Amino acid sequence: MVKMNVAEVEAFLAREFPQVAMTGDFTVLETGPMSAKLRLNCGEHHLRPGATVSGPTMFALADIGIWLAVLAQIGPVGMAVTTNLNINFLRLPGSVDLVADCKILKLGRRLAIGECGIAPADGGELVAHATATYSIPPGAVK
Amino acid sequence: MVKMNVAEVEAFLAREFPQVAMTGDFTVLETGPMSAKLRLNCGEHHLRPGATVSGPTMFALADIGIWLAVLAQIGPVGMAVTTNLNINFLRLPGSVDLVADCKILKLGRRLAIGECGIAPADGGELVAHATATYSIPPGAVK
Amino acid sequence: MVKMNVAEVEAFLAREFPQVAMTGDFTVLETGPMSAKLRLNCGEHHLRPGATVSGPTMFALADIGIWLAVLAQIGPVGMAVTTNLNINFLRLPGSVDLVADCKILKLGRRLAIGECGIAPADGGELVAHATATYSIPPGAVK
Amino acid sequence: MVKMNVAEVEAFLAREFPQVAMTGDFTVLETGPMSAKLRLNCGEHHLRPGATVSGPTMFALADIGIWLAVLAQIGPVGMAVTTNLNINFLRLPGSVDLVADCKILKLGRRLAIGECGIAPADGGELVAHATATYSIPPGAVK
Repeated sequence: MVKMNVAEVEAFLAREFPQVAMTGDFTVLETGPMSAKLRLNCGEHHLRPGATVSGPTMFALADIGIWLAVLAQIGPVGMAVTTNLNINFLRLPGSVDLVADCKILKLGRRLAIGECGIAPADGGELVAHATATYSIPPGAVK
Repeated sequence: MVKMNVAEVEAFLAREFPQVAMTGDFTVLETGPMSAKLRLNCGEHHLRPGATVSGPTMFALADIGIWLAVLAQIGPVGMAVTTNLNINFLRLPGSVDLVADCKILKLGRRLAIGECGIAPADGGELVAHATATYSIPPGAVK
Repeated sequence: MVKMNVAEVEAFLAREFPQVAMTGDFTVLETGPMSAKLRLNCGEHHLRPGATVSGPTMFALADIGIWLAVLAQIGPVGMAVTTNLNINFLRLPGSVDLVADCKILKLGRRLAIGECGIAPADGGELVAHATATYSIPPGAVK
Repeated sequence: MVKMNVAEVEAFLAREFPQVAMTGDFTVLETGPMSAKLRLNCGEHHLRPGATVSGPTMFALADIGIWLAVLAQIGPVGMAVTTNLNINFLRLPGSVDLVADCKILKLGRRLAIGECGIAPADGGELVAHATATYSIPPGAVK
Protein backbone atom coordinates (compact mmCIF):
# COMPACT_ATOMS: atom_id res chain seq x y z
CA MET A 1 0.00 0.00 0.00
CA VAL A 2 2.82 2.39 0.85
CA LYS A 3 4.97 3.10 -2.19
CA MET A 4 8.09 4.33 -0.38
CA ASN A 5 9.63 3.00 2.82
CA VAL A 6 11.91 5.02 5.11
CA ALA A 7 15.08 4.23 3.15
CA GLU A 8 13.44 5.15 -0.16
CA VAL A 9 12.09 8.41 1.22
CA GLU A 10 15.52 9.30 2.62
CA ALA A 11 17.24 8.47 -0.67
CA PHE A 12 14.71 10.63 -2.50
CA LEU A 13 15.32 13.52 -0.09
CA ALA A 14 19.09 13.22 -0.41
CA ARG A 15 18.81 13.35 -4.21
CA GLU A 16 16.10 15.97 -4.65
CA PHE A 17 16.31 18.05 -1.46
CA PRO A 18 19.96 17.98 -0.44
CA GLN A 19 19.46 21.27 1.43
CA VAL A 20 17.06 19.50 3.79
CA ALA A 21 18.66 16.06 3.82
CA MET A 22 22.25 17.08 4.41
CA THR A 23 21.62 19.26 7.43
CA GLY A 24 20.83 16.26 9.60
CA ASP A 25 18.04 18.37 11.08
CA PHE A 26 15.35 15.80 10.31
CA THR A 27 15.15 12.01 10.51
CA VAL A 28 12.37 10.02 8.85
CA LEU A 29 11.19 7.59 11.53
CA GLU A 30 8.35 5.85 9.78
CA THR A 31 6.15 5.75 6.69
CA GLY A 32 2.86 3.86 6.73
CA PRO A 33 -0.56 3.74 5.13
CA MET A 34 -1.65 7.39 4.99
CA SER A 35 0.94 8.34 7.62
CA ALA A 36 4.54 9.24 8.42
CA LYS A 37 6.64 10.28 11.40
CA LEU A 38 9.44 12.84 11.19
CA ARG A 39 11.90 13.74 13.95
CA LEU A 40 13.56 17.11 14.53
CA ASN A 41 17.07 16.71 15.87
CA CYS A 42 17.18 19.92 17.87
CA GLY A 43 20.28 22.10 17.55
CA GLU A 44 21.25 25.64 18.54
CA HIS A 45 20.11 27.05 15.20
CA HIS A 46 16.52 25.83 15.81
CA LEU A 47 16.09 27.87 18.98
CA ARG A 48 14.70 31.32 19.57
CA PRO A 49 15.25 33.42 22.72
CA GLY A 50 14.05 31.59 25.78
CA ALA A 51 15.85 28.47 24.51
CA THR A 52 12.77 27.01 22.85
CA VAL A 53 12.30 25.57 19.36
CA SER A 54 11.30 28.41 17.01
CA GLY A 55 8.03 28.75 15.09
CA PRO A 56 9.62 28.46 11.63
CA THR A 57 11.34 25.24 12.73
CA MET A 58 8.02 23.71 13.83
CA PHE A 59 6.42 24.96 10.61
CA ALA A 60 9.15 23.18 8.60
CA LEU A 61 8.76 19.99 10.65
CA ALA A 62 4.99 19.93 10.03
CA ASP A 63 5.24 20.86 6.36
CA ILE A 64 7.98 18.37 5.47
CA GLY A 65 6.40 15.64 7.60
CA ILE A 66 2.94 15.78 6.00
CA TRP A 67 4.53 16.22 2.57
CA LEU A 68 6.60 13.05 3.10
CA ALA A 69 3.47 11.19 4.19
CA VAL A 70 1.89 12.16 0.85
CA LEU A 71 5.04 11.25 -1.08
CA ALA A 72 5.19 7.83 0.58
CA GLN A 73 1.70 7.07 -0.79
CA ILE A 74 2.05 8.39 -4.33
CA GLY A 75 5.73 7.64 -4.93
CA PRO A 76 8.40 9.93 -6.36
CA VAL A 77 6.43 10.67 -9.51
CA GLY A 78 6.23 14.40 -9.13
CA MET A 79 6.29 17.25 -6.71
CA ALA A 80 3.38 18.09 -4.48
CA VAL A 81 3.36 21.79 -3.58
CA THR A 82 2.07 23.23 -0.28
CA THR A 83 -0.85 25.58 -0.88
CA ASN A 84 -2.06 26.12 2.71
CA LEU A 85 -0.72 25.47 6.18
CA ASN A 86 -2.48 26.31 9.42
CA ILE A 87 -0.55 25.84 12.67
CA ASN A 88 -1.60 26.23 16.29
CA PHE A 89 1.17 26.68 18.83
CA LEU A 90 0.02 25.08 22.08
CA ARG A 91 2.97 25.18 24.49
CA LEU A 92 6.62 26.30 24.40
CA PRO A 93 8.55 23.09 23.76
CA GLY A 94 11.86 24.16 25.25
CA SER A 95 15.09 22.86 23.75
CA VAL A 96 14.23 19.26 22.91
CA ASP A 97 13.92 16.90 19.95
CA LEU A 98 10.40 16.83 18.54
CA VAL A 99 8.39 14.29 16.55
CA ALA A 100 5.66 15.15 14.03
CA ASP A 101 3.04 12.39 13.84
CA CYS A 102 1.45 12.96 10.42
CA LYS A 103 -1.79 11.61 8.98
CA ILE A 104 -3.31 12.12 5.56
CA LEU A 105 -6.98 13.06 5.82
CA LYS A 106 -7.63 13.04 2.09
CA LEU A 107 -5.61 11.90 -0.89
CA GLY A 108 -7.38 13.10 -4.01
CA ARG A 109 -6.23 13.38 -7.60
CA ARG A 110 -5.73 17.13 -7.30
CA LEU A 111 -5.35 17.81 -3.56
CA ALA A 112 -3.97 16.06 -0.51
CA ILE A 113 -4.89 17.28 2.98
CA GLY A 114 -3.16 16.15 6.14
CA GLU A 115 -2.66 16.95 9.79
CA CYS A 116 0.07 16.46 12.35
CA GLY A 117 0.58 16.70 16.06
CA ILE A 118 4.04 17.75 17.24
CA ALA A 119 5.22 16.44 20.62
CA PRO A 120 8.55 16.01 22.43
CA ALA A 121 10.39 12.90 21.18
CA ASP A 122 10.50 11.68 24.79
CA GLY A 123 6.72 11.95 25.06
CA GLY A 124 4.46 14.45 26.75
CA GLU A 125 1.75 16.83 25.62
CA LEU A 126 1.44 18.23 22.11
CA VAL A 127 3.37 21.47 21.59
CA ALA A 128 1.84 22.27 18.19
CA HIS A 129 -0.77 21.00 15.74
CA ALA A 130 -0.97 21.71 12.02
CA THR A 131 -3.13 20.98 9.00
CA ALA A 132 -1.87 21.43 5.44
CA THR A 133 -3.04 21.20 1.84
CA TYR A 134 -0.87 20.12 -1.10
CA SER A 135 -1.54 20.45 -4.81
CA ILE A 136 -0.87 17.10 -6.52
CA PRO A 137 0.69 17.14 -10.01
CA PRO A 138 -1.62 15.85 -12.76
CA GLY A 139 -1.35 12.11 -13.24
CA ALA A 140 0.42 11.38 -9.94
CA VAL A 141 -2.68 9.85 -8.30
CA LYS A 142 -4.99 7.58 -10.30
CA MET B 1 -12.40 15.45 35.91
CA VAL B 2 -15.26 16.42 33.59
CA LYS B 3 -17.45 19.10 35.17
CA MET B 4 -20.56 18.60 33.03
CA ASN B 5 -22.08 15.37 31.79
CA VAL B 6 -24.36 15.09 28.75
CA ALA B 7 -27.53 15.96 30.69
CA GLU B 8 -25.90 18.99 32.30
CA VAL B 9 -24.57 20.24 28.98
CA GLU B 10 -27.99 19.83 27.37
CA ALA B 11 -29.72 21.62 30.24
CA PHE B 12 -27.21 24.45 29.94
CA LEU B 13 -27.82 24.70 26.19
CA ALA B 14 -31.58 24.71 26.63
CA ARG B 15 -31.31 27.55 29.16
CA GLU B 16 -28.63 29.70 27.55
CA PHE B 17 -28.83 28.81 23.86
CA PRO B 18 -32.50 28.02 23.21
CA GLN B 19 -32.00 28.91 19.52
CA VAL B 20 -29.57 26.00 19.19
CA ALA B 21 -31.14 23.59 21.66
CA MET B 22 -34.74 23.86 20.54
CA THR B 23 -34.12 23.18 16.89
CA GLY B 24 -33.31 19.55 17.53
CA ASP B 25 -30.52 19.94 14.99
CA PHE B 26 -27.85 18.74 17.38
CA THR B 27 -27.63 15.96 19.97
CA VAL B 28 -24.85 15.82 22.56
CA LEU B 29 -23.65 12.21 22.46
CA GLU B 30 -20.80 12.30 24.94
CA THR B 31 -18.62 14.47 27.14
CA GLY B 32 -15.32 13.15 28.46
CA PRO B 33 -11.90 14.25 29.65
CA MET B 34 -10.83 16.86 27.09
CA SER B 35 -13.42 15.60 24.60
CA ALA B 36 -17.02 15.63 23.41
CA LYS B 37 -19.11 14.17 20.60
CA LEU B 38 -21.92 16.08 18.90
CA ARG B 39 -24.38 14.69 16.34
CA LEU B 40 -26.04 16.58 13.51
CA ASN B 41 -29.57 15.33 12.87
CA CYS B 42 -29.67 16.09 9.18
CA GLY B 43 -32.78 17.80 7.81
CA GLU B 44 -33.78 19.54 4.57
CA HIS B 45 -32.63 22.94 5.86
CA HIS B 46 -29.05 21.65 6.31
CA LEU B 47 -28.63 20.76 2.65
CA ARG B 48 -27.26 22.72 -0.26
CA PRO B 49 -27.80 21.87 -3.96
CA GLY B 50 -26.57 18.40 -4.74
CA ALA B 51 -28.37 17.17 -1.59
CA THR B 52 -25.29 17.36 0.60
CA VAL B 53 -24.82 18.91 4.05
CA SER B 54 -23.83 22.58 3.61
CA GLY B 55 -20.57 24.21 4.66
CA PRO B 56 -22.17 26.52 7.26
CA THR B 57 -23.87 23.49 8.84
CA MET B 58 -20.54 21.66 9.18
CA PHE B 59 -18.96 24.86 10.49
CA ALA B 60 -21.68 25.08 13.16
CA LEU B 61 -21.29 21.40 14.07
CA ALA B 62 -17.52 21.83 14.54
CA ASP B 63 -17.78 25.14 16.40
CA ILE B 64 -20.50 24.05 18.81
CA GLY B 65 -18.90 20.63 19.32
CA ILE B 66 -15.46 21.89 20.32
CA TRP B 67 -17.05 24.69 22.37
CA LEU B 68 -19.11 22.11 24.30
CA ALA B 69 -15.96 20.05 24.90
CA VAL B 70 -14.40 23.16 26.49
CA LEU B 71 -17.55 23.91 28.48
CA ALA B 72 -17.67 20.35 29.82
CA GLN B 73 -14.18 20.83 31.30
CA ILE B 74 -14.55 24.31 32.80
CA GLY B 75 -18.23 24.21 33.76
CA PRO B 76 -20.91 26.80 33.10
CA VAL B 77 -18.97 29.61 34.71
CA GLY B 78 -18.76 31.90 31.74
CA MET B 79 -18.81 32.09 28.02
CA ALA B 80 -15.90 31.07 25.86
CA VAL B 81 -15.90 32.99 22.55
CA THR B 82 -14.63 31.58 19.23
CA THR B 83 -11.72 33.64 17.94
CA ASN B 84 -10.50 31.42 15.07
CA LEU B 85 -11.83 28.45 13.16
CA ASN B 86 -10.07 26.67 10.32
CA ILE B 87 -11.99 24.00 8.44
CA ASN B 88 -10.93 21.65 5.65
CA PHE B 89 -13.70 20.10 3.57
CA LEU B 90 -12.55 16.64 2.49
CA ARG B 91 -15.49 14.96 0.77
CA LEU B 92 -19.14 15.77 0.03
CA PRO B 93 -21.06 14.02 2.81
CA GLY B 94 -24.37 13.68 1.01
CA SER B 95 -27.59 13.86 2.98
CA VAL B 96 -26.72 11.99 6.18
CA ASP B 97 -26.42 12.51 9.92
CA LEU B 98 -22.89 13.50 10.95
CA VAL B 99 -20.86 13.21 14.15
CA ALA B 100 -18.16 15.62 15.25
CA ASP B 101 -15.52 13.89 17.37
CA CYS B 102 -13.93 16.75 19.32
CA LYS B 103 -10.69 16.87 21.29
CA ILE B 104 -9.18 19.71 23.28
CA LEU B 105 -5.52 20.19 22.40
CA LYS B 106 -4.88 22.89 25.00
CA LEU B 107 -6.91 24.25 27.88
CA GLY B 108 -5.14 27.34 29.15
CA ARG B 109 -6.30 30.13 31.41
CA ARG B 110 -6.81 32.49 28.46
CA LEU B 111 -7.18 30.24 25.42
CA ALA B 112 -8.54 26.83 24.59
CA ILE B 113 -7.63 25.15 21.30
CA GLY B 114 -9.35 22.06 19.96
CA GLU B 115 -9.85 19.97 16.86
CA CYS B 116 -12.58 17.77 15.46
CA GLY B 117 -13.08 15.24 12.73
CA ILE B 118 -16.53 15.10 11.16
CA ALA B 119 -17.71 11.74 9.78
CA PRO B 120 -21.02 10.12 8.85
CA ALA B 121 -22.87 8.88 11.95
CA ASP B 122 -22.97 5.43 10.37
CA GLY B 123 -19.20 5.39 9.99
CA GLY B 124 -16.92 5.92 7.02
CA GLU B 125 -14.24 8.38 6.05
CA LEU B 126 -13.94 11.91 7.46
CA VAL B 127 -15.87 14.51 5.46
CA ALA B 128 -14.35 17.53 7.22
CA HIS B 129 -11.74 18.44 9.82
CA ALA B 130 -11.56 21.63 11.87
CA THR B 131 -9.40 23.33 14.47
CA ALA B 132 -10.67 26.21 16.60
CA THR B 133 -9.50 28.67 19.25
CA TYR B 134 -11.66 30.05 22.06
CA SER B 135 -11.00 32.97 24.37
CA ILE B 136 -11.66 31.90 27.98
CA PRO B 137 -13.25 34.43 30.35
CA PRO B 138 -10.94 35.56 33.19
CA GLY B 139 -11.20 33.32 36.24
CA ALA B 140 -12.94 30.42 34.48
CA VAL B 141 -9.84 28.20 34.48
CA LYS B 142 -7.54 28.16 37.52
CA MET C 1 -12.75 41.25 -17.66
CA VAL C 2 -15.60 40.29 -15.32
CA LYS C 3 -17.79 37.61 -16.88
CA MET C 4 -20.87 38.11 -14.71
CA ASN C 5 -22.39 41.33 -13.45
CA VAL C 6 -24.64 41.62 -10.37
CA ALA C 7 -27.82 40.75 -12.26
CA GLU C 8 -26.21 37.72 -13.89
CA VAL C 9 -24.84 36.47 -10.58
CA GLU C 10 -28.24 36.89 -8.93
CA ALA C 11 -30.01 35.08 -11.78
CA PHE C 12 -27.48 32.25 -11.49
CA LEU C 13 -28.04 32.00 -7.73
CA ALA C 14 -31.83 31.98 -8.14
CA ARG C 15 -31.57 29.14 -10.65
CA GLU C 16 -28.84 27.01 -9.06
CA PHE C 17 -29.01 27.89 -5.37
CA PRO C 18 -32.66 28.70 -4.68
CA GLN C 19 -32.12 27.80 -1.00
CA VAL C 20 -29.70 30.72 -0.70
CA ALA C 21 -31.31 33.11 -3.16
CA MET C 22 -34.88 32.84 -1.98
CA THR C 23 -34.21 33.53 1.68
CA GLY C 24 -33.43 37.18 0.99
CA ASP C 25 -30.60 36.79 3.50
CA PHE C 26 -27.95 37.99 1.06
CA THR C 27 -27.77 40.76 -1.55
CA VAL C 28 -25.02 40.89 -4.17
CA LEU C 29 -23.81 44.51 -4.09
CA GLU C 30 -21.01 44.42 -6.59
CA THR C 31 -18.84 42.25 -8.82
CA GLY C 32 -15.58 43.57 -10.21
CA PRO C 33 -12.16 42.46 -11.45
CA MET C 34 -11.06 39.84 -8.89
CA SER C 35 -13.62 41.13 -6.36
CA ALA C 36 -17.20 41.10 -5.13
CA LYS C 37 -19.26 42.56 -2.29
CA LEU C 38 -22.05 40.65 -0.55
CA ARG C 39 -24.48 42.03 2.04
CA LEU C 40 -26.10 40.14 4.91
CA ASN C 41 -29.61 41.40 5.58
CA CYS C 42 -29.66 40.66 9.29
CA GLY C 43 -32.76 38.93 10.69
CA GLU C 44 -33.70 37.23 13.95
CA HIS C 45 -32.59 33.83 12.65
CA HIS C 46 -29.01 35.09 12.14
CA LEU C 47 -28.53 35.98 15.81
CA ARG C 48 -27.11 34.02 18.70
CA PRO C 49 -27.62 34.86 22.40
CA GLY C 50 -26.37 38.34 23.16
CA ALA C 51 -28.19 39.57 20.04
CA THR C 52 -25.16 39.37 17.81
CA VAL C 53 -24.75 37.82 14.35
CA SER C 54 -23.75 34.16 14.78
CA GLY C 55 -20.49 32.53 13.67
CA PRO C 56 -22.14 30.22 11.09
CA THR C 57 -23.86 33.24 9.54
CA MET C 58 -20.54 35.07 9.14
CA PHE C 59 -18.97 31.87 7.81
CA ALA C 60 -21.72 31.65 5.17
CA LEU C 61 -21.34 35.34 4.27
CA ALA C 62 -17.58 34.90 3.74
CA ASP C 63 -17.86 31.59 1.90
CA ILE C 64 -20.63 32.68 -0.48
CA GLY C 65 -19.03 36.11 -1.02
CA ILE C 66 -15.60 34.83 -2.06
CA TRP C 67 -17.21 32.03 -4.09
CA LEU C 68 -19.30 34.62 -5.99
CA ALA C 69 -16.16 36.67 -6.63
CA VAL C 70 -14.63 33.58 -8.24
CA LEU C 71 -17.80 32.82 -10.19
CA ALA C 72 -17.94 36.36 -11.54
CA GLN C 73 -14.47 35.88 -13.06
CA ILE C 74 -14.87 32.41 -14.54
CA GLY C 75 -18.55 32.51 -15.46
CA PRO C 76 -21.24 29.92 -14.75
CA VAL C 77 -19.28 27.11 -16.38
CA GLY C 78 -19.09 24.83 -13.41
CA MET C 79 -19.09 24.62 -9.67
CA ALA C 80 -16.13 25.64 -7.58
CA VAL C 81 -16.07 23.74 -4.28
CA THR C 82 -14.76 25.15 -0.98
CA THR C 83 -11.83 23.09 0.28
CA ASN C 84 -10.58 25.30 3.13
CA LEU C 85 -11.89 28.27 5.05
CA ASN C 86 -10.09 30.04 7.87
CA ILE C 87 -11.98 32.73 9.78
CA ASN C 88 -10.88 35.09 12.55
CA PHE C 89 -13.61 36.64 14.66
CA LEU C 90 -12.43 40.08 15.72
CA ARG C 91 -15.37 41.77 17.48
CA LEU C 92 -19.00 40.95 18.28
CA PRO C 93 -20.96 42.72 15.54
CA GLY C 94 -24.23 43.07 17.36
CA SER C 95 -27.50 42.88 15.45
CA VAL C 96 -26.67 44.75 12.24
CA ASP C 97 -26.41 44.23 8.48
CA LEU C 98 -22.91 43.24 7.41
CA VAL C 99 -20.92 43.53 4.18
CA ALA C 100 -18.22 41.11 3.04
CA ASP C 101 -15.61 42.86 0.88
CA CYS C 102 -14.06 39.98 -1.08
CA LYS C 103 -10.85 39.85 -3.08
CA ILE C 104 -9.36 37.01 -5.10
CA LEU C 105 -5.69 36.52 -4.27
CA LYS C 106 -5.08 33.83 -6.88
CA LEU C 107 -7.15 32.47 -9.72
CA GLY C 108 -5.40 29.37 -11.02
CA ARG C 109 -6.61 26.58 -13.27
CA ARG C 110 -7.06 24.22 -10.32
CA LEU C 111 -7.39 26.47 -7.26
CA ALA C 112 -8.75 29.89 -6.42
CA ILE C 113 -7.79 31.57 -3.14
CA GLY C 114 -9.49 34.66 -1.78
CA GLU C 115 -9.94 36.76 1.32
CA CYS C 116 -12.65 38.96 2.76
CA GLY C 117 -13.11 41.49 5.50
CA ILE C 118 -16.54 41.64 7.11
CA ALA C 119 -17.70 44.99 8.51
CA PRO C 120 -21.01 46.61 9.48
CA ALA C 121 -22.88 47.85 6.39
CA ASP C 122 -22.95 51.31 7.99
CA GLY C 123 -19.17 51.33 8.31
CA GLY C 124 -16.88 50.81 11.26
CA GLU C 125 -14.17 48.35 12.18
CA LEU C 126 -13.90 44.82 10.78
CA VAL C 127 -15.81 42.23 12.80
CA ALA C 128 -14.31 39.21 11.02
CA HIS C 129 -11.73 38.29 8.39
CA ALA C 130 -11.58 35.11 6.34
CA THR C 131 -9.46 33.40 3.70
CA ALA C 132 -10.76 30.53 1.60
CA THR C 133 -9.63 28.06 -1.07
CA TYR C 134 -11.83 26.68 -3.84
CA SER C 135 -11.21 23.75 -6.17
CA ILE C 136 -11.92 24.82 -9.76
CA PRO C 137 -13.53 22.28 -12.10
CA PRO C 138 -11.27 21.15 -14.97
CA GLY C 139 -11.55 23.39 -18.02
CA ALA C 140 -13.28 26.30 -16.25
CA VAL C 141 -10.17 28.53 -16.27
CA LYS C 142 -7.92 28.62 -19.33
CA MET D 1 0.14 56.66 18.16
CA VAL D 2 2.97 54.30 17.21
CA LYS D 3 5.19 53.59 20.23
CA MET D 4 8.26 52.37 18.34
CA ASN D 5 9.76 53.67 15.12
CA VAL D 6 12.02 51.65 12.81
CA ALA D 7 15.20 52.44 14.73
CA GLU D 8 13.60 51.54 18.06
CA VAL D 9 12.23 48.26 16.70
CA GLU D 10 15.63 47.36 15.25
CA ALA D 11 17.41 48.21 18.51
CA PHE D 12 14.89 46.04 20.38
CA LEU D 13 15.46 43.15 17.98
CA ALA D 14 19.23 43.44 18.26
CA ARG D 15 19.00 43.31 22.06
CA GLU D 16 16.30 40.70 22.55
CA PHE D 17 16.46 38.61 19.35
CA PRO D 18 20.10 38.67 18.28
CA GLN D 19 19.56 35.37 16.41
CA VAL D 20 17.13 37.16 14.10
CA ALA D 21 18.74 40.59 14.02
CA MET D 22 22.32 39.54 13.40
CA THR D 23 21.63 37.36 10.39
CA GLY D 24 20.84 40.36 8.22
CA ASP D 25 18.01 38.28 6.77
CA PHE D 26 15.36 40.86 7.58
CA THR D 27 15.17 44.66 7.35
CA VAL D 28 12.41 46.64 9.05
CA LEU D 29 11.20 49.08 6.38
CA GLU D 30 8.39 50.84 8.18
CA THR D 31 6.24 50.95 11.30
CA GLY D 32 2.96 52.84 11.30
CA PRO D 33 -0.45 52.98 12.95
CA MET D 34 -1.54 49.32 13.09
CA SER D 35 1.01 48.38 10.43
CA ALA D 36 4.59 47.46 9.58
CA LYS D 37 6.64 46.42 6.58
CA LEU D 38 9.44 43.86 6.76
CA ARG D 39 11.87 42.92 3.97
CA LEU D 40 13.49 39.56 3.36
CA ASN D 41 17.01 39.93 1.99
CA CYS D 42 17.07 36.73 -0.02
CA GLY D 43 20.18 34.53 0.24
CA GLU D 44 21.13 30.98 -0.73
CA HIS D 45 20.03 29.60 2.64
CA HIS D 46 16.43 30.83 2.05
CA LEU D 47 15.97 28.78 -1.11
CA ARG D 48 14.55 25.33 -1.66
CA PRO D 49 15.04 23.22 -4.84
CA GLY D 50 13.82 25.06 -7.88
CA ALA D 51 15.63 28.18 -6.63
CA THR D 52 12.59 29.65 -4.96
CA VAL D 53 12.18 31.10 -1.45
CA SER D 54 11.18 28.27 0.91
CA GLY D 55 7.94 27.94 2.87
CA PRO D 56 9.59 28.23 6.31
CA THR D 57 11.30 31.44 5.18
CA MET D 58 7.96 32.98 4.13
CA PHE D 59 6.40 31.73 7.37
CA ALA D 60 9.16 33.50 9.34
CA LEU D 61 8.76 36.69 7.29
CA ALA D 62 5.00 36.77 7.97
CA ASP D 63 5.29 35.83 11.64
CA ILE D 64 8.05 38.31 12.49
CA GLY D 65 6.43 41.06 10.37
CA ILE D 66 3.01 40.92 12.02
CA TRP D 67 4.63 40.48 15.43
CA LEU D 68 6.72 43.64 14.87
CA ALA D 69 3.57 45.51 13.83
CA VAL D 70 2.04 44.54 17.20
CA LEU D 71 5.22 45.44 19.07
CA ALA D 72 5.34 48.86 17.42
CA GLN D 73 1.87 49.61 18.83
CA ILE D 74 2.27 48.31 22.38
CA GLY D 75 5.96 49.07 22.94
CA PRO D 76 8.65 46.77 24.31
CA VAL D 77 6.73 46.00 27.50
CA GLY D 78 6.52 42.28 27.10
CA MET D 79 6.52 39.45 24.68
CA ALA D 80 3.57 38.62 22.48
CA VAL D 81 3.52 34.91 21.60
CA THR D 82 2.21 33.47 18.31
CA THR D 83 -0.71 31.12 18.95
CA ASN D 84 -1.97 30.58 15.38
CA LEU D 85 -0.67 31.23 11.89
CA ASN D 86 -2.48 30.40 8.66
CA ILE D 87 -0.60 30.87 5.41
CA ASN D 88 -1.70 30.48 1.79
CA PHE D 89 1.04 30.02 -0.79
CA LEU D 90 -0.14 31.62 -4.02
CA ARG D 91 2.77 31.50 -6.47
CA LEU D 92 6.41 30.37 -6.43
CA PRO D 93 8.37 33.59 -5.82
CA GLY D 94 11.66 32.50 -7.33
CA SER D 95 14.91 33.79 -5.88
CA VAL D 96 14.06 37.40 -5.02
CA ASP D 97 13.81 39.75 -2.07
CA LEU D 98 10.30 39.85 -0.61
CA VAL D 99 8.31 42.40 1.41
CA ALA D 100 5.63 41.55 3.96
CA ASP D 101 3.01 44.31 4.18
CA CYS D 102 1.46 43.75 7.62
CA LYS D 103 -1.75 45.12 9.10
CA ILE D 104 -3.24 44.60 12.55
CA LEU D 105 -6.91 43.66 12.34
CA LYS D 106 -7.51 43.70 16.08
CA LEU D 107 -5.43 44.83 19.03
CA GLY D 108 -7.16 43.65 22.18
CA ARG D 109 -5.97 43.35 25.74
CA ARG D 110 -5.49 39.58 25.41
CA LEU D 111 -5.17 38.92 21.68
CA ALA D 112 -3.83 40.67 18.62
CA ILE D 113 -4.79 39.45 15.14
CA GLY D 114 -3.10 40.58 11.96
CA GLU D 115 -2.65 39.77 8.31
CA CYS D 116 0.06 40.26 5.73
CA GLY D 117 0.51 40.02 1.99
CA ILE D 118 3.95 38.96 0.76
CA ALA D 119 5.10 40.25 -2.63
CA PRO D 120 8.40 40.67 -4.47
CA ALA D 121 10.27 43.76 -3.26
CA ASP D 122 10.34 44.98 -6.86
CA GLY D 123 6.56 44.75 -7.09
CA GLY D 124 4.26 42.26 -8.74
CA GLU D 125 1.56 39.88 -7.59
CA LEU D 126 1.29 38.47 -4.07
CA VAL D 127 3.22 35.24 -3.58
CA ALA D 128 1.73 34.44 -0.16
CA HIS D 129 -0.85 35.71 2.33
CA ALA D 130 -0.99 35.00 6.06
CA THR D 131 -3.11 35.73 9.11
CA ALA D 132 -1.81 35.29 12.64
CA THR D 133 -2.93 35.52 16.26
CA TYR D 134 -0.72 36.59 19.17
CA SER D 135 -1.34 36.27 22.89
CA ILE D 136 -0.64 39.60 24.59
CA PRO D 137 0.98 39.56 28.05
CA PRO D 138 -1.28 40.87 30.85
CA GLY D 139 -1.00 44.61 31.33
CA ALA D 140 0.72 45.32 27.99
CA VAL D 141 -2.40 46.87 26.40
CA LYS D 142 -4.64 49.14 28.47
